Amino acid sequence: MTTAHQHAVEGEIQRLLSLGATRPGALPLPDHHDLWDAFSRASDGGKRFRPSLLLSAHQALGGTREPAAVQVAAALELLHTALVVQDDVIDGDQVRRGVPSLPGGIAADARRRGAGPAEARRLGEAAGILAGDLGLIAAMRAIARCEAPAPVIERLLDLFESTLHATAAGELADVRLQLGPAHGSVVLREALAVAELKTALYSFQLPLRAGALLADASPEVLAALDEIGSLLGIGFQLFDDLLGVFGDERRTGKSALGDLREGKRTALIAHASTTDSWDALQPLLGREDLDEAGARRARDLLTSGGSRAWVEDLARWHVTSAAEAAERHELPPGLAVALDLATAEILRAADLTLPTTVPADAAPVRRRAEEGLPA
Amino acid sequence: MTTAHQHAVEGEIQRLLSLGATRPGALPLPDHHDLWDAFSRASDGGKRFRPSLLLSAHQALGGTREPAAVQVAAALELLHTALVVQDDVIDGDQVRRGVPSLPGGIAADARRRGAGPAEARRLGEAAGILAGDLGLIAAMRAIARCEAPAPVIERLLDLFESTLHATAAGELADVRLQLGPAHGSVVLREALAVAELKTALYSFQLPLRAGALLADASPEVLAALDEIGSLLGIGFQLFDDLLGVFGDERRTGKSALGDLREGKRTALIAHASTTDSWDALQPLLGREDLDEAGARRARDLLTSGGSRAWVEDLARWHVTSAAEAAERHELPPGLAVALDLATAEILRAADLTLPTTVPADAAPVRRRAEEGLPA
Repeated sequence: MTTAHQHAVEGEIQRLLSLGATRPGALPLPDHHDLWDAFSRASDGGKRFRPSLLLSAHQALGGTREPAAVQVAAALELLHTALVVQDDVIDGDQVRRGVPSLPGGIAADARRRGAGPAEARRLGEAAGILAGDLGLIAAMRAIARCEAPAPVIERLLDLFESTLHATAAGELADVRLQLGPAHGSVVLREALAVAELKTALYSFQLPLRAGALLADASPEVLAALDEIGSLLGIGFQLFDDLLGVFGDERRTGKSALGDLREGKRTALIAHASTTDSWDALQPLLGREDLDEAGARRARDLLTSGGSRAWVEDLARWHVTSAAEAAERHELPPGLAVALDLATAEILRAADLTLPTTVPADAAPVRRRAEEGLPA
Repeated sequence: MTTAHQHAVEGEIQRLLSLGATRPGALPLPDHHDLWDAFSRASDGGKRFRPSLLLSAHQALGGTREPAAVQVAAALELLHTALVVQDDVIDGDQVRRGVPSLPGGIAADARRRGAGPAEARRLGEAAGILAGDLGLIAAMRAIARCEAPAPVIERLLDLFESTLHATAAGELADVRLQLGPAHGSVVLREALAVAELKTALYSFQLPLRAGALLADASPEVLAALDEIGSLLGIGFQLFDDLLGVFGDERRTGKSALGDLREGKRTALIAHASTTDSWDALQPLLGREDLDEAGARRARDLLTSGGSRAWVEDLARWHVTSAAEAAERHELPPGLAVALDLATAEILRAADLTLPTTVPADAAPVRRRAEEGLPA
């Protein structure tokens, strides 16, 4: 994303947030202000990964609908924030990337005003659900109003709606998987499906396809981008699963105990359930009181049993397959750079080294990648 | 609502639900099917009160955009379902009108498959949040696609979005009020504001105004309908508060203990906090273990302290003021009938008798009112 694009997207996000602030007119209660203010703060400071992907795709494919691309890019960021705050409700996460999540922040405020812990938590969860609703609607509305021809808007809205349906299914499956038996190849297959539906679709396929639709790309290009988006997105999610257990807390901003304490059925855990380490590992998972020593033991078992290496390999396979697909489909060079950039960000996020395919002449773009990982 | 309208609205609701079922295409997980199926069932069997209000307003104001009116009416029903299922998550309600709520039904299914109570509940809540998201988006999309001219659609979408912002504020305030001190005139004022924002706006003002916008009504008519919708909606909510404590469980389908056990800060309770009954009443409220004897004692205190009569009077004042406003603004006779019908339904819902203002020649319409209350 160029600096000009970056500024344009930030400006558009701020415009949409300001619009939301005055949306209901004067109200006799302070709650709308508090709610939208919290949502606006939750939208702050992201890496704008999805807008960047959209704008890169649009530009690389020769798109000329710059204003619309910026508007839709901003909408995707609101969508992302909306999904994040509701995900924090669903997962009961009071903290996100080292700072209070929206539900956590509202709950903490209520605690300071004297509410009991359960009541405060309930208020935070209500706020997360409702702020998410408003964010989703604002995102959809922004797309409906973007400066593109009506048929393009119609396709963008179809894409938005279909993506949201699949993402919701992935999110629900993610919770459901925690309830079932934690072992076997079915779980592993389902964990990969969750990675695709919950993450790859809205974070990778959606921005790529939206940028391509705005650039009037051919059906072949759209199909190629779907394939690549899916591969990259699953790869990203697999690395994220690894980070959730092996990550450096100071860098990821989230506890490396959380996933283990929650007993999250990631692909990592699903794989472990097929190994000899399982009998020793299983009793450590899903324990609220898991301490650092127990977590270390779990990590050792995941490593010695080969699950860590297996997931790393699978993640790498996905991102390198994405790069190969980009080459095979003969995508425009600019788009290949953008995709390599996304790949580099994913790998950097994973804090793992792998020779990236970013060409030498993409150095300036690559520097930008150093600034951060998808957030 | 005429029988033809009723069929048209049902058909359109079913069409939108079918559309949603295939929205994400083939997915590798069963969760989308389960989620949308649950949402579809939650949409079943409502009294279609909001569609009826919209179609009546549209018709009475001489509107000729029948297909669009039916489409938007169906959208309002999806919106209603979406808000209901998320409200059930926020309030932790496992039962609604005598049957399992969406979160309650999903949780019960999970229990049957062997999940623990907390995990099952979490799955139900996730499903409620996500189904609500999809319903909201489907509703907005249906409006965006309705067969009305673009400027009318734009105004309808503005209305939809503004209403949702205000409703979210009302919903959040409803939860927040439970956390603060339970007494004083501030709480009473806020409880009335919640009744307006959480209920009156989306259930009364929105359908009336949407019908009027589709009929190209004048700004004066729109303003009159806003006033009337607000009065009717607050009146409805006040009667609903009374029902929550004094209602016949077999008729309301919800426990008359729930609001007391939850310690819900309704206008009824807020008023009681300003009376001499408060010292005796307060210890009974918000107790999970409140039994029928305790509830009877609470009801007696609310009655002897004058709070029940006060809220009844206030509710009646709101609905009769709505009727007066309809007369003062010289609304078309058909619209006055529709509003009287809504009033009659509210009063019937409240199971209280009050001479209604439905004119004699509206008898067939009135019979329709016997079929049910806003649901």
